[in-house]
Amino acid sequence: MSDTDNFDRGLAIYPGSFDPITNGHIELIFRGLEVFDRLVVAVAHNPRKEPMFTTEERTRLIREALPERPDLEVDCFEGLLVDYAARRHARVILRGLRAVADFESEFQMANMNKKINPAVETLFMMTGEKYFFLSSQNVREVATFGGPVDDLVPPNVAKALREKLGS
Amino acid sequence: MSDTDNFDRGLAIYPGSFDPITNGHIELIFRGLEVFDRLVVAVAHNPRKEPMFTTEERTRLIREALPERPDLEVDCFEGLLVDYAARRHARVILRGLRAVADFESEFQMANMNKKINPAVETLFMMTGEKYFFLSSQNVREVATFGGPVDDLVPPNVAKALREKLGS
Amino acid sequence: MSDTDNFDRGLAIYPGSFDPITNGHIELIFRGLEVFDRLVVAVAHNPRKEPMFTTEERTRLIREALPERPDLEVDCFEGLLVDYAARRHARVILRGLRAVADFESEFQMANMNKKINPAVETLFMMTGEKYFFLSSQNVREVATFGGPVDDLVPPNVAKALREKLGS
Amino acid sequence: MSDTDNFDRGLAIYPGSFDPITNGHIELIFRGLEVFDRLVVAVAHNPRKEPMFTTEERTRLIREALPERPDLEVDCFEGLLVDYAARRHARVILRGLRAVADFESEFQMANMNKKINPAVETLFMMTGEKYFFLSSQNVREVATFGGPVDDLVPPNVAKALREKLGS
Amino acid sequence: MSDTDNFDRGLAIYPGSFDPITNGHIELIFRGLEVFDRLVVAVAHNPRKEPMFTTEERTRLIREALPERPDLEVDCFEGLLVDYAARRHARVILRGLRAVADFESEFQMANMNKKINPAVETLFMMTGEKYFFLSSQNVREVATFGGPVDDLVPPNVAKALREKLGS
Amino acid sequence: MSDTDNFDRGLAIYPGSFDPITNGHIELIFRGLEVFDRLVVAVAHNPRKEPMFTTEERTRLIREALPERPDLEVDCFEGLLVDYAARRHARVILRGLRAVADFESEFQMANMNKKINPAVETLFMMTGEKYFFLSSQNVREVATFGGPVDDLVPPNVAKALREKLGS
Repeated sequence: MSDTDNFDRGLAIYPGSFDPITNGHIELIFRGLEVFDRLVVAVAHNPRKEPMFTTEERTRLIREALPERPDLEVDCFEGLLVDYAARRHARVILRGLRAVADFESEFQMANMNKKINPAVETLFMMTGEKYFFLSSQNVREVATFGGPVDDLVPPNVAKALREKLGS
Repeated sequence: MSDTDNFDRGLAIYPGSFDPITNGHIELIFRGLEVFDRLVVAVAHNPRKEPMFTTEERTRLIREALPERPDLEVDCFEGLLVDYAARRHARVILRGLRAVADFESEFQMANMNKKINPAVETLFMMTGEKYFFLSSQNVREVATFGGPVDDLVPPNVAKALREKLGS
Repeated sequence: MSDTDNFDRGLAIYPGSFDPITNGHIELIFRGLEVFDRLVVAVAHNPRKEPMFTTEERTRLIREALPERPDLEVDCFEGLLVDYAARRHARVILRGLRAVADFESEFQMANMNKKINPAVETLFMMTGEKYFFLSSQNVREVATFGGPVDDLVPPNVAKALREKLGS
Repeated sequence: MSDTDNFDRGLAIYPGSFDPITNGHIELIFRGLEVFDRLVVAVAHNPRKEPMFTTEERTRLIREALPERPDLEVDCFEGLLVDYAARRHARVILRGLRAVADFESEFQMANMNKKINPAVETLFMMTGEKYFFLSSQNVREVATFGGPVDDLVPPNVAKALREKLGS
Repeated sequence: MSDTDNFDRGLAIYPGSFDPITNGHIELIFRGLEVFDRLVVAVAHNPRKEPMFTTEERTRLIREALPERPDLEVDCFEGLLVDYAARRHARVILRGLRAVADFESEFQMANMNKKINPAVETLFMMTGEKYFFLSSQNVREVATFGGPVDDLVPPNVAKALREKLGS
Repeated sequence: MSDTDNFDRGLAIYPGSFDPITNGHIELIFRGLEVFDRLVVAVAHNPRKEPMFTTEERTRLIREALPERPDLEVDCFEGLLVDYAARRHARVILRGLRAVADFESEFQMANMNKKINPAVETLFMMTGEKYFFLSSQNVREVATFGGPVDDLVPPNVAKALREKLGS
């Protein structure tokens, strides 16, 4: 059904909105690098949504927050995730799971992706306990009300949030 | 924290009770083989539980149900799963997720394992939709009441269930 | 796939352990009678489980607690529920749903039953809010510790619990 | 409390937004027809929401996708569902249940409806396993990104999605 | 970490949007007054959301619906809840829990609040069974469609809903 | 309905099996002491269950693990929890909530208790994130397989587990 030989088995795609990237995402990226040969952090560009940060800003914030490593790449994509994964010859999509609400929507998405391209497999990693309740949405809400986000996001993101919100 | 060089990155452990192995397990094993270089199906021997099939029977039923392939091994283990994974130099434990009940207990187990050995990572794969409601326990119950299990387990397991239950 | 003509469309089976029947079950039976032409309350006899009340006792307690009506029958069965439903030419199995835990196991059961006999359909009714947290197991626990169960079960069941527990 | 004699016991209402109708809805409609004498697929018109397809389009797409049968009707309604059910003298509202998220909101709705009109009963059917992760929202998202929806919706709906999205 | 002596141990904050207050909220307020020395019902003012009732209207509706008691206060606040709790020297935030969906978001919020101010503790109370499925959103929806809300909210709120919706 | 004057508003009961007490329990006890004037850790004696540690052992392990403080008491009880709470003139039962599975059974129990004695209120506290996946059952399992429990339980409990399991 799929041309297995073309796939790059050591490559995993870690997709998301990352609006903005949090310490939970970053922990998961480092854990992913321990398990896969190479990891692409793939920022989803969705022209129909209004993020707090633009795709360019989100991509730049991730690049600044992560070390330069040959096995780590930050990219962005538009359209269907499975199409992007296929273009990258990736067999594996990596996703973090936090809680029951995540579970449902993640399963829907993984199933839909598998229907569209059965050769691409979604693997889930449990979010670390320290970040079990942390989400980009939480971060945006706390920052919006002037709360401290320094323990929740990398320093460059905390700075970008303060600038964006003029606080 | 862990000696990364000793780990065998392409190796994944797929542990379980497999009492007995179902078509859901088998589908997941084949999907795992597409993603990892080698897979060890690891049958848990728990002297405190009373399974329907002994560890030897469960191991044999799995071996019979799967093709011989150089990238696939069936083994059994006793004691802590993370200790077994460490002995095998495996970095990855693969688990199937079916539903919310699974989710909770799987997360507890993955977290506890990570506490005991942070170098071992649990990756989850979504059970295929055809097998979303299938479990070894269901199979045992249906078989116990004389119901048909031929669509739920491999033929050799169906035969073994009939013999075990004298039906 | 199934011989539709043989089915009795107005008939619904309401199966359970009923160990013992609670006010929640009784409310659901009356609501079922408003929707279906005839209802069979079907007490499951499971030789491998040790209930508090025997199948005969459970059946008798239900009969005493319900009015005699031509559209209501109390029966017991052994073996697979779908086989019993087929013997009764029933197309519909009625089940109450209380909460998330229920949801998972009920869906597993309904799905397994549908696999075994696709002609039999499980319909779920939401348990009334007054009985959302009431289960036979709760009743047994409260009664075991000498707590009051008079608001939870019919009077004859409360009496039977007191006699059974010698309190 | 309610005038039972006026109710049409064989009639069930299957309400929804159907924006658009999916193969999962269609499977449930056919299963409903096996259990109830007549089924009304009732398209909810909500002037406060902005659907992808208008109420007229949604109704037409359903009519085209379903066979003409004397026991099947496609209608639309505005206002409270229980008021519509009462106008149709229907005692039964039929809903599909897919997963935990569904469960919560469906129970809230069923309970609220029962409070407003206790004579109307909501019966739930488990979505078939093939459609467990399929929703109108998924379909809209996949179609929006140019993904294939031919396995998810009837052919006329796939065509309408392509026309609507200009792809 | 926090100056415990400054805290007012008998004081609990019961925060919410209360758009509008329901009978479920009111039941919880009375139960809270049985357990805590004083309770502040704290209406959240969020300039980024568009409620049905303004903060002033929501506050007034609550004041009208509750008796005047020395141990009960109705207030409103803007910004982070934990900052408000700290300004009031309150150690306890009281929240009602209804169902699984609540559970997830409530836990996220409680955890985030604890991260921001570890001295403030969130205590949860189970919503009474009569109100398990009742939410302000349900009330708004039912009222919008002209349904009866008299059993769901206090009389003054039912009147305000009718006036607001011009029905 | 209840004689409020007899209740001791500052007193909370923290009941459990504590088989054995974990670091998660201990964290919750200290957080409870910040919020309530006095806390009774109440060990449930259930003659029908077979715990790993006897009621006497469980009580002693808790006493050893906690500091002596005038606002903290360790007690054990038999029978219905609400009866014990009433004997102690306590209005509040404090329980920790960890996850969805907890949520369901905790709500059933709280609701049943409220039915039996409406004057007693159950308040829930979210388990700290470090202990979100920790349970006495996990601890027993890890210890049984010879795994390290030193980060999961107080030192005296770790020692008792080793002695009990002869390892």
